[in-house]
Amino acid sequence: MALNLRKARQIIKAAMNKGAELQLKPLSVIVLDAGGHPIAFERSDGASPGRYGIAHGKAYGAVMLGMAGQAQMARAEQQAYFMAAVNGVFGGAVVPVPGGVLVRDAKGTVLGAVGVTGDTSDNDELAAVAGIEAAKLIADA
Amino acid sequence: MALNLRKARQIIKAAMNKGAELQLKPLSVIVLDAGGHPIAFERSDGASPGRYGIAHGKAYGAVMLGMAGQAQMARAEQQAYFMAAVNGVFGGAVVPVPGGVLVRDAKGTVLGAVGVTGDTSDNDELAAVAGIEAAKLIADA
Amino acid sequence: MALNLRKARQIIKAAMNKGAELQLKPLSVIVLDAGGHPIAFERSDGASPGRYGIAHGKAYGAVMLGMAGQAQMARAEQQAYFMAAVNGVFGGAVVPVPGGVLVRDAKGTVLGAVGVTGDTSDNDELAAVAGIEAAKLIADA
Amino acid sequence: MALNLRKARQIIKAAMNKGAELQLKPLSVIVLDAGGHPIAFERSDGASPGRYGIAHGKAYGAVMLGMAGQAQMARAEQQAYFMAAVNGVFGGAVVPVPGGVLVRDAKGTVLGAVGVTGDTSDNDELAAVAGIEAAKLIADA
Repeated sequence: MALNLRKARQIIKAAMNKGAELQLKPLSVIVLDAGGHPIAFERSDGASPGRYGIAHGKAYGAVMLGMAGQAQMARAEQQAYFMAAVNGVFGGAVVPVPGGVLVRDAKGTVLGAVGVTGDTSDNDELAAVAGIEAAKLIADA
Repeated sequence: MALNLRKARQIIKAAMNKGAELQLKPLSVIVLDAGGHPIAFERSDGASPGRYGIAHGKAYGAVMLGMAGQAQMARAEQQAYFMAAVNGVFGGAVVPVPGGVLVRDAKGTVLGAVGVTGDTSDNDELAAVAGIEAAKLIADA
Repeated sequence: MALNLRKARQIIKAAMNKGAELQLKPLSVIVLDAGGHPIAFERSDGASPGRYGIAHGKAYGAVMLGMAGQAQMARAEQQAYFMAAVNGVFGGAVVPVPGGVLVRDAKGTVLGAVGVTGDTSDNDELAAVAGIEAAKLIADA
Repeated sequence: MALNLRKARQIIKAAMNKGAELQLKPLSVIVLDAGGHPIAFERSDGASPGRYGIAHGKAYGAVMLGMAGQAQMARAEQQAYFMAAVNGVFGGAVVPVPGGVLVRDAKGTVLGAVGVTGDTSDNDELAAVAGIEAAKLIADA
């Protein structure tokens, strides 16, 4: 199974709904496939214009490294120069903080990743997880 | 009035429907705001993974230059070095072919742009125009 | 089904053997997955040091655009500025000439691409096709 | 003597075998020549898609600086700005952590480098060393 557009829409809708339910600031949500390429993206009204890049960077790092934002942040705090070097390799596109969550199927295969930005990193992550679970997929945060 | 997420969703939905109606290859559609920043994007199942960049490049050139893809293509055919220089300025992000269409309000103000890719450039443009018109906005192709 | 390392090794081995059989210059062969990411690469002794980038660029353009090197070359000859713009979008990584061949399964799904460089573009393509067919996959050149 | 494709295959095979023996996560292994250019690369099934860049960055830094990953990491920890500046010079391609190992001949001449990624940096290095020694060359970690 691969992530398709129908699943990506479900993820975005449910993540946005979670943001509304928790009264978070306006969220932006991206869904990437297993190769790190965008399937769908939405930016809420009122979000700042640079949100695509942040949402993308959270999800992209997760896919490319096979490691969610939480683990990337831990690595960045231990070895800042390592994550800086990783970003050199990936053209500066990686944003190593929570809110980048891997999407797995029931067997554990990585199908892609979701990136959420707009509120605190931890709240962004909550919304990403809610989105993934609403699509009946496994969130690995 | 600005382009908001609700309008962007309408545009994408109607552009995708136009593609289905005309039996085009799987389309990818992006909507950018008046600052050239993504509001929403969708890539159809079966489209190649690089479609985000192409869709973005069509719409981005339109917004940043205030000139739709048709006009950019004409300029590229007359003065290839000019569009190459433009791409130097804009980090290589501009794709100067049809399928990048400006979105205007009734007064003529640019609200953003739509980029469509997947079929021929001319068919991509048809889908973009259909999307914009379905949202009761003015398509400037 | 996805391209795995075992299939990639079969492709490379058979492409190299085809090169030897046809007495081609020393070949370099890369296999990319459906997201455009390297699975395996080999450069023959005597090949020039820059061959990784060329092999990669042939295969990468094929995957990202869903279009083999032959079709990319045709487009580049008709609309040089379009392929130049595409390369802006993809960081200059695309080499639009024969020798980049899509790998499809029996249903037509793109599993990845093979890039071969070292001899003439047409001979490079022959070797890529031979490699893909030896692995019982469909070559789309 | 130079590193050739036959030796590079031996190195990759033995490094992969070491990973299997130690039950490491799926490894990716690259062999670069004395000019820092790829001879061969393999990514194990199940490894994340960004592993080429990481493996390359470990080996590339080793060759270009004549200094294995261990020494680069020590320098990065003492003088993070120095390794950042090095990455400015080398286009962001250097990943200064263990797993990048120089390959020397019996006289001490650098023939190239091996980069391994997938498990902890220290385990990656063990696999790289095992690969080099299996090819009867000197590993300088």
